[in-house]
Amino acid sequence: MLNRNVPVQDFNIIDSTLREGEQFRGAHFSVEDKLEIAGLLDQFGVEYMELSTPVASPQSADAIRALADMPRRFKLLTHIRAELDDARLAVDCGVDGADVYIGTSDYMREYSHGKTLEQVITLGQEVVAYLNSQGVETRFSTEDTFRSNFADVMTVYRAMDLAGVNRVGVADTVGLADPMQTFNLISNLRDVVNCDIEFHGHNDSSCAVANAFCALQAGATHIDTTILGIGERNGITPMGALIGRLYTCDRALVAKYELPLLAEIERWLARKLGIEIPFNTPITGAVAFHHKAGVHTKAVLRNPTTYEAIDPADFGQTRIIDIAHRLVGRNAIRERARLLGIELPEPLLRHATAAVKALADERQISLADVDSILNAIPLPASD
Amino acid sequence: MLNRNVPVQDFNIIDSTLREGEQFRGAHFSVEDKLEIAGLLDQFGVEYMELSTPVASPQSADAIRALADMPRRFKLLTHIRAELDDARLAVDCGVDGADVYIGTSDYMREYSHGKTLEQVITLGQEVVAYLNSQGVETRFSTEDTFRSNFADVMTVYRAMDLAGVNRVGVADTVGLADPMQTFNLISNLRDVVNCDIEFHGHNDSSCAVANAFCALQAGATHIDTTILGIGERNGITPMGALIGRLYTCDRALVAKYELPLLAEIERWLARKLGIEIPFNTPITGAVAFHHKAGVHTKAVLRNPTTYEAIDPADFGQTRIIDIAHRLVGRNAIRERARLLGIELPEPLLRHATAAVKALADERQISLADVDSILNAIPLPASD
Repeated sequence: MLNRNVPVQDFNIIDSTLREGEQFRGAHFSVEDKLEIAGLLDQFGVEYMELSTPVASPQSADAIRALADMPRRFKLLTHIRAELDDARLAVDCGVDGADVYIGTSDYMREYSHGKTLEQVITLGQEVVAYLNSQGVETRFSTEDTFRSNFADVMTVYRAMDLAGVNRVGVADTVGLADPMQTFNLISNLRDVVNCDIEFHGHNDSSCAVANAFCALQAGATHIDTTILGIGERNGITPMGALIGRLYTCDRALVAKYELPLLAEIERWLARKLGIEIPFNTPITGAVAFHHKAGVHTKAVLRNPTTYEAIDPADFGQTRIIDIAHRLVGRNAIRERARLLGIELPEPLLRHATAAVKALADERQISLADVDSILNAIPLPASD
Repeated sequence: MLNRNVPVQDFNIIDSTLREGEQFRGAHFSVEDKLEIAGLLDQFGVEYMELSTPVASPQSADAIRALADMPRRFKLLTHIRAELDDARLAVDCGVDGADVYIGTSDYMREYSHGKTLEQVITLGQEVVAYLNSQGVETRFSTEDTFRSNFADVMTVYRAMDLAGVNRVGVADTVGLADPMQTFNLISNLRDVVNCDIEFHGHNDSSCAVANAFCALQAGATHIDTTILGIGERNGITPMGALIGRLYTCDRALVAKYELPLLAEIERWLARKLGIEIPFNTPITGAVAFHHKAGVHTKAVLRNPTTYEAIDPADFGQTRIIDIAHRLVGRNAIRERARLLGIELPEPLLRHATAAVKALADERQISLADVDSILNAIPLPASD
């Protein structure tokens, strides 16, 4: 039951830590910060980096120029409104590509830009034609795609495909799309356009990783991610979690990215922003490989795959087998005793396990408590 | 594009904070703790609470007896191996129901319990028959369902349905299932059994919320959750995130649970375990309703629904509109000036916005910095 049709090898990461991530509370990156994180992400192997629009501020433009000049393998993008002036400045800053966006839902048209669908298409065509003429890769994305009229968005995408964009983008701007809805929308879009398809998903209802995965299953080629998922509100698809999701389908991913760098990259960002890496972060979170219940530790001691979807070693991580609590089982206590050089006969093993559980019922205990109990057991004299 | 067939009103939460949650690193709950959190969850309105097996330790059994005796609306469950002795102790402790589990994948059978499929079924039938005879609600769950042979698990589920279980359980024990796979498996199961269907999903590849949602779409009736998703390794479906996911489909959920209690319940747990509520937690995380980018704040000031899937007020939360950064737009600056009693003509508004951006390019700024800039603007004398 594990046959999943996902092009693990062929998809592209668009890292948006320096665009979407700049919209995270308290995110303030200097040009030096931007160069440093770009260096790390280049080493990791992301295919693209997207930066905030050069229109935002003078430093925003300077940072794009600085990254354009650095030695790198990734393609450099910036995220701009569907405005010719914005596109001209982007080209002037030396980007490899421009991610153009405009809202297509009634909400966006009424409360954001106030344009009609025809105006959206005309503007998009002008901007794409200009960028194409400058030899710059183009992406045209609708905003709030899932609350837009289905016929409207397909009309816009088809028009942009015909206008020569390299990629169309689907955006779950408000974070309310669900996995099957995402799969269906991208599947339909796959039939409407010939160009590549990008997915950008917010995490307000905790589906940003699942939706990105379903988008890939449906034919998307590019996924927007940020380090730890930072972004507007509670953010978008986190790069590490998406990598984990894909790795469970095909471990060949190990050859595509420098996976052991992931933890360092996340720590860099957390330090910079003064945030804690969430305890529930897959792979790099503090408890990602923490095994505790008796039936789990017993099986993991025999074969870790029994309770692990991901091999921690592939990410430079280690597993922890925790036996200092009331849920501990005899097998884990036997293993611990052996490590201490104690071979316990069955009745004493039962006695020791019960003693650990009884102490753990009284208070939170540590491995030292377990060892004290084991060391205090009177063993039969071996003569 | 928002038609989603989810029985938001009819599904059941099985809170497993005192079972799966006890398998989280450092989770140590006294009987008093267990009574306190049960009181809060009862007020919130969870339909079930599941506790660790009474076999685990003397306190584990005492806690079940204590919760059995408290005034409550939820049904009390305990989670036991498919063993008659475990079932007898559960009944003796006064539970309303027993969640029986056994592994069906090759991994579980080889490295965990070593039984054949026929032995699994026979054991299950015996335990279910005993529990039924005692008037106790029964659930029979396979472990590691998604790595089990499809024919095997359907055979087991059908046998248990015929044996009279109230519920069969599907478990993504290792956290590798994806949403469409979950939907497909539960859809098939829905055709095979007449009883209720429970889903238990781990979060190792970040799909625990999405998979639970797809399980409900496919016909599941009960979802296992814990507060903040704590559990073995990085945990399972968090209750708050699942509630958020369902709320985006149907706001009628507001009448089903005491939603403003969610934040207090999560804070209780975080304090008890000494963990931080992850920044990216939907609804109750620190940044869940934090709006920053210029286009976002402009639209949210006009109509929050433009960029919010969830109304913070329904959960007793508040939105934050952050304008002290380089991504700020003119509309947000105009609004702030108005709050300060300053009506800025267009050229001065542009000047003020540029001044805020320039200062934010130099260093991280605060709202006080924005106000200083606005207060320092020389306004035309109004005579």
